[in-house]
Amino acid sequence: MSYFSNVDKVKYEGVKSDNPFAFRHYNPEEEVLGKTMKEHLRFAVAYWHTITEDGGDPFGTGTAIRNWDGDTPMETAKNRVDAFFELLVKLDVEYFAFHDVDIAPTGDSLEEFFSNLDEITDLIKEKMDETGIKLLWNTQNVFTHPRFVHGAATSNNADVFAYAAAQVKKTIDLSVKLGGENIVFWGGREGYESLLNTDLELELDNMARLLQMAVDYAEKVGHKVQFLLEPKPKEPMTHQYDHDAATTVAFLQKYNLMEHFKLNLEGNHATLAGHTFEHELRVARSYDALGSIDANHAEKMLGWDTDEFPTNIYDTTLTMYEILENGGIAPGGINFDAKVRRTSFEMDDLVLAHIAGMDTFARGLKSAAKMKEEKFLDDIIEKRYASYTEGIGKRIVDNEEDLESLTKYALDNKEIKNESSHLEFIKSRMNDYLV
Amino acid sequence: MSYFSNVDKVKYEGVKSDNPFAFRHYNPEEEVLGKTMKEHLRFAVAYWHTITEDGGDPFGTGTAIRNWDGDTPMETAKNRVDAFFELLVKLDVEYFAFHDVDIAPTGDSLEEFFSNLDEITDLIKEKMDETGIKLLWNTQNVFTHPRFVHGAATSNNADVFAYAAAQVKKTIDLSVKLGGENIVFWGGREGYESLLNTDLELELDNMARLLQMAVDYAEKVGHKVQFLLEPKPKEPMTHQYDHDAATTVAFLQKYNLMEHFKLNLEGNHATLAGHTFEHELRVARSYDALGSIDANHAEKMLGWDTDEFPTNIYDTTLTMYEILENGGIAPGGINFDAKVRRTSFEMDDLVLAHIAGMDTFARGLKSAAKMKEEKFLDDIIEKRYASYTEGIGKRIVDNEEDLESLTKYALDNKEIKNESSHLEFIKSRMNDYLV
Amino acid sequence: MSYFSNVDKVKYEGVKSDNPFAFRHYNPEEEVLGKTMKEHLRFAVAYWHTITEDGGDPFGTGTAIRNWDGDTPMETAKNRVDAFFELLVKLDVEYFAFHDVDIAPTGDSLEEFFSNLDEITDLIKEKMDETGIKLLWNTQNVFTHPRFVHGAATSNNADVFAYAAAQVKKTIDLSVKLGGENIVFWGGREGYESLLNTDLELELDNMARLLQMAVDYAEKVGHKVQFLLEPKPKEPMTHQYDHDAATTVAFLQKYNLMEHFKLNLEGNHATLAGHTFEHELRVARSYDALGSIDANHAEKMLGWDTDEFPTNIYDTTLTMYEILENGGIAPGGINFDAKVRRTSFEMDDLVLAHIAGMDTFARGLKSAAKMKEEKFLDDIIEKRYASYTEGIGKRIVDNEEDLESLTKYALDNKEIKNESSHLEFIKSRMNDYLV
Amino acid sequence: MSYFSNVDKVKYEGVKSDNPFAFRHYNPEEEVLGKTMKEHLRFAVAYWHTITEDGGDPFGTGTAIRNWDGDTPMETAKNRVDAFFELLVKLDVEYFAFHDVDIAPTGDSLEEFFSNLDEITDLIKEKMDETGIKLLWNTQNVFTHPRFVHGAATSNNADVFAYAAAQVKKTIDLSVKLGGENIVFWGGREGYESLLNTDLELELDNMARLLQMAVDYAEKVGHKVQFLLEPKPKEPMTHQYDHDAATTVAFLQKYNLMEHFKLNLEGNHATLAGHTFEHELRVARSYDALGSIDANHAEKMLGWDTDEFPTNIYDTTLTMYEILENGGIAPGGINFDAKVRRTSFEMDDLVLAHIAGMDTFARGLKSAAKMKEEKFLDDIIEKRYASYTEGIGKRIVDNEEDLESLTKYALDNKEIKNESSHLEFIKSRMNDYLV
Repeated sequence: MSYFSNVDKVKYEGVKSDNPFAFRHYNPEEEVLGKTMKEHLRFAVAYWHTITEDGGDPFGTGTAIRNWDGDTPMETAKNRVDAFFELLVKLDVEYFAFHDVDIAPTGDSLEEFFSNLDEITDLIKEKMDETGIKLLWNTQNVFTHPRFVHGAATSNNADVFAYAAAQVKKTIDLSVKLGGENIVFWGGREGYESLLNTDLELELDNMARLLQMAVDYAEKVGHKVQFLLEPKPKEPMTHQYDHDAATTVAFLQKYNLMEHFKLNLEGNHATLAGHTFEHELRVARSYDALGSIDANHAEKMLGWDTDEFPTNIYDTTLTMYEILENGGIAPGGINFDAKVRRTSFEMDDLVLAHIAGMDTFARGLKSAAKMKEEKFLDDIIEKRYASYTEGIGKRIVDNEEDLESLTKYALDNKEIKNESSHLEFIKSRMNDYLV
Repeated sequence: MSYFSNVDKVKYEGVKSDNPFAFRHYNPEEEVLGKTMKEHLRFAVAYWHTITEDGGDPFGTGTAIRNWDGDTPMETAKNRVDAFFELLVKLDVEYFAFHDVDIAPTGDSLEEFFSNLDEITDLIKEKMDETGIKLLWNTQNVFTHPRFVHGAATSNNADVFAYAAAQVKKTIDLSVKLGGENIVFWGGREGYESLLNTDLELELDNMARLLQMAVDYAEKVGHKVQFLLEPKPKEPMTHQYDHDAATTVAFLQKYNLMEHFKLNLEGNHATLAGHTFEHELRVARSYDALGSIDANHAEKMLGWDTDEFPTNIYDTTLTMYEILENGGIAPGGINFDAKVRRTSFEMDDLVLAHIAGMDTFARGLKSAAKMKEEKFLDDIIEKRYASYTEGIGKRIVDNEEDLESLTKYALDNKEIKNESSHLEFIKSRMNDYLV
Repeated sequence: MSYFSNVDKVKYEGVKSDNPFAFRHYNPEEEVLGKTMKEHLRFAVAYWHTITEDGGDPFGTGTAIRNWDGDTPMETAKNRVDAFFELLVKLDVEYFAFHDVDIAPTGDSLEEFFSNLDEITDLIKEKMDETGIKLLWNTQNVFTHPRFVHGAATSNNADVFAYAAAQVKKTIDLSVKLGGENIVFWGGREGYESLLNTDLELELDNMARLLQMAVDYAEKVGHKVQFLLEPKPKEPMTHQYDHDAATTVAFLQKYNLMEHFKLNLEGNHATLAGHTFEHELRVARSYDALGSIDANHAEKMLGWDTDEFPTNIYDTTLTMYEILENGGIAPGGINFDAKVRRTSFEMDDLVLAHIAGMDTFARGLKSAAKMKEEKFLDDIIEKRYASYTEGIGKRIVDNEEDLESLTKYALDNKEIKNESSHLEFIKSRMNDYLV
Repeated sequence: MSYFSNVDKVKYEGVKSDNPFAFRHYNPEEEVLGKTMKEHLRFAVAYWHTITEDGGDPFGTGTAIRNWDGDTPMETAKNRVDAFFELLVKLDVEYFAFHDVDIAPTGDSLEEFFSNLDEITDLIKEKMDETGIKLLWNTQNVFTHPRFVHGAATSNNADVFAYAAAQVKKTIDLSVKLGGENIVFWGGREGYESLLNTDLELELDNMARLLQMAVDYAEKVGHKVQFLLEPKPKEPMTHQYDHDAATTVAFLQKYNLMEHFKLNLEGNHATLAGHTFEHELRVARSYDALGSIDANHAEKMLGWDTDEFPTNIYDTTLTMYEILENGGIAPGGINFDAKVRRTSFEMDDLVLAHIAGMDTFARGLKSAAKMKEEKFLDDIIEKRYASYTEGIGKRIVDNEEDLESLTKYALDNKEIKNESSHLEFIKSRMNDYLV
């Protein structure tokens, strides 16, 4: 049975095409800077937003029209696997990502949940073998169920920590089974609601403890996987411990976890923290911690997580520029942690929305590549910082100066000459690189 | 000559007093939790806001009516020293803080500036000896002059780095001379205006280099002083590198500077970063990095630095609670990095505003002390996290569990029982602790 | 059967009481400025947050433990009426508020829904008669169901407009039946998601049309009721048409609806619009449009609607000050549009949270009354604007001057003398009025 | 003498050109939708940002290198007129705008100020006659000088009201002299710092009084000019009365000023109010109040007025779309209320920055025109709201239905069918319209 029967395999037809179910910019095998677009972009589809969600929001119930409901939760879960892989194949997407609760019913006990996961992942594995589609990352949902009301690793209830730990172990086991390339931790309830009743130090210690246990277990079972922490500043918590890239790195450094963890950065989460997404990417790069990205978009004026599909060319251009500068995103990828609007409730919208995101990223890649090829920003940077490549500047970066020698230099140096940034010119010129 | 001739030495007269020039809550020698209020609070007055500023803002020129202008910049500078110490004595404040440019004219050359600084600090030292008033901290202003247009340590121009380094050396020399207890770095222009033209890694490396040079020089001259970095997220830069407490700690960890630096946290800067001030204090404490505070207040809805005098009892109560939990703030202090409103342009307002701030902090101290004495929050925390003091919880914090053992535990553990936070009750009860 | 069996009727016991189920500040019959606290405060409990909600949020399912579930939706609905009135009586609250969907199952058709409403309101009426409790306001929920995905009065689908109109008629009919004192319109989906696909003018015209129809129908059936519009800036919509008080007044003026509508202002909505709540109240007053308030609190740093119970004394003091200046809030009231935190999931929390809110408002009332009694702000205002009570100022406000005469005056007037605001002093003194 | 000697008259050379001093997109005489680009865009240069400002910010002194300083303030003022018109001619800009204080020294008295204004405007008039350049608007600066510390029309000091009135009269007189097409009121200090000491109603009444006096005087002297109010939400005031478009319209309606005033909308001010610029434009249009625009750009994450030159193509496309829908912006224009960055301190940057802004608006115009030509959004809207063109929908908009008739309709109408917005598709397709 076909779930997306309106749609054939989506193909690149170029910008002249009137076919809404065609790529206008994403041409998977087209080479850009010596690699195919597919190799650069490593797109993934998110199970939760695409398959599990129903379009509800805090002020309204679900609107999504979906055609995979079965008679039992397990039957529905199985139908969803079929539908999901049909969509992946039709979109020509190579990767996917999921939370444990997305793919299988949680049942009446942890035991039953694990057994359901085993059964469904058998099916997923079959599909993966059949299609060549790979697991970018999986994760455990330790925030939705009422038992996590006070957090998971940071709950004040040790039984909850234990429960979360069991889910983490299962996540690793499933990653082994499915050959996952990364494992993500997003701490939906790892933070505080109020400082008045929070032992922040114990909570952070415990959060680090769970991560260390995951590292130890993966090593024990010999699973070479990239662990990723996903920053988000707030919502649902008043403050989430993995607030932004820099905060998360501070935490990883404190607990000696830098060598095992990188960051899974999300556009909307950057916005909520008051940052641009390119800022978060750059900060992560400066700590050698850029792991993977959750590609989505936020209206800048809205203060909650909207997880829109990315359609802004500036954003994708600057994102791809950082990724190119990073030498690529692998073993991470570009995961569409994005949901169709509540008003885009048809099955077709799932296809159209992914096409929109993929085309926008394709444009971003091409624009960024053009900037790299013409050394647009490289030249600006090289010229701007030239003073550190010789003389006093070079001695500073070579650590050959101290306060006393520099004081002497400054007292002797009669005139300092700065140069204009010409920033308006740069920003305007950048527009001409947009493809 | 007296500059504040309207005002005698400000005394504690209690809340019944109608005298606007009396403390209604701050009673310096009153004991609270075994120390005098003066010992707890370690108030400092800021030279810049109190003496140097004129009430201008981006849309208006100065309004302040001041009576210390002389015929030459140096004469004015000297008058200001007299006026400043008169105010400190009348307010019974023990500490003060300054930037180099606040106290002496910068003249036509670095040499002349240094010579002016020497002359004025001779005068300041005299006043300090005479009054017993001490230097909480001094710092260098490496952001106002056009030479710092692209930053100081993070300028793209190595000559500017050298110039800043010379000012830092002078700051340390003056700290030695005046017996300063702390030295602050606030990087007004250390950040980026646009990522397009920024070599973020070089800039951060250079910022760390200057800090290390300061540490080395202080060690060389044998000056035992607490170095402090002051976080601020933005303004004037689009992004400042010392964004908030956590970001600054990440930087200090990366460059191995944690043992030499703590944080000088400011209320208004917390607001601009989207944090409460108590959040920043708690984060700093969790990294053992709470150094000193710049006490001021921000209207939460405004997106720029307003540096109001603190008059909110909730804020000062929670601030003082964190300080009590920290075992005090020494060798740091509570520095009023606060300016009278542009509409409060009379000399008297300088006195009234400091009284307002000191009274509000005195109320905060008494309220926080009452919470500590009655173990209001301690009891809540102790009860809430009890599960980590025995059984599985204790084994987790003792690092005796791993994913496998916890999975076994979770599978066997049939029912998880969480307890309500009763957060509304806690918040309402807290109100009854406000003094 | 008793639903809140832990709790007896809540009584005023004063601040020394250790009983969590007592009022510490709210003393219903205590006189303040010549009226009882009960007459001033006109508290209402909200059916939806208190009875219908389950503690879910976008990242987690419901946590609330409730004891009123029956075997059928109607049985549950009936139990809830009993539980609700039990709570109202125990809290000694005089008013309540509800949406149509809160009180009765929507069934399989509009007809069935209306019939359910009739049956449940019979029960509610009985309870009202029995207890003397009154209906502050009711409203129609025209935003939760998928049919309202594109709005209600502002939907692009005329059938949806008609459906909403039917609900509005029923709201008025129920208001007649229950003697409601106000009727509220909150346009949860009346706004736009994107301007790209929005005919803003048609949508605003239609919104006005529905309001006019409501006015006409109420007049036709002779129901003298105060209509209220409730501003909110955003969420769930990107922009909601009733953005804030001023925006809503602009709309009402344009469509000649000012004489029929006042505003139902909410604290959290003010915050989301970047305003303080006292700002919204003051603006409404300046247009003679302050109708009623939805009392709740928001963490200022959070960008979504949290609807916390009010526990901040500054906020309630300034709110009550505006209400006193308004000559009271009747026929409106202070409705706790507030929900217990997801972590406060016990039945007791419903009681504790309302006590917290009522006590905080009682403190606010007493503080505001003290300011009025001592003419704290009145004196400041009177002195500050004295120049408009005589001479040129009086002639200006009497409209006896024009640009030419004022130019002559200004050219002749040699010196303008302004006075300091002493704002720091005022803010600090205000603290001493907090009870 | 030439001030911009590096630069010849800037010409359109197309996107292939490497000449930084050429237009790449703005081609003044090119026809778009039947009018030349020049006629559509009606560009104006702002005297203050371009000529008067020095690049200072609250944390730094001026950096701008300018070559027009003379030996006296009046000589400087005269040089500036020459430089300004040289720039206007070289940029091929047709309009300009100024505050009174921008063009002439304020001197020691109002009399002297007026006399200076007369002398400088003689010179300006000469230049206008010589070049054909026209005055888009002028305004009075009644916010910078300390006398306006408490406001101008809303000052508590009636003498200040009179002084402001005199400046307003002079503004109108100069508008008559120079043939100005609009007159702007921006109330930099018309708002409140704190509600505690504010008589909001008196202040609003007085603000309206001054506007009415301006209307009356212009009528008396027979000057047909478009009056404009400029909304801004805050800064320098905590709250400014002309908060945003809707708030300003509410005020104009209340005081019966709608027929005389339209709005001068600014991009950065929209951002500060939490709106997109296109929102403000659309709202103004819906009240028939779109008068003119101040074109600039804001980093969305910054909370203060940065007044950057516009370089974002999305923004200019959506702005120009609203302007096209409005049937053009005349007699208003597109005024670059934008300042070069503090780091863009060279004379050349004044030229480069305006080219950047003009090119970005030219792209926006062409993109918007393409959308109009292909009826991209028109078709979406027409199809989306089709239900209101017949049947029940048509009867609703024709005011032929009421609550009773609609209830009957709704009870009979068995199934409501909504359609998907396909919003992701629309947003992605919009990208293909960007030129």
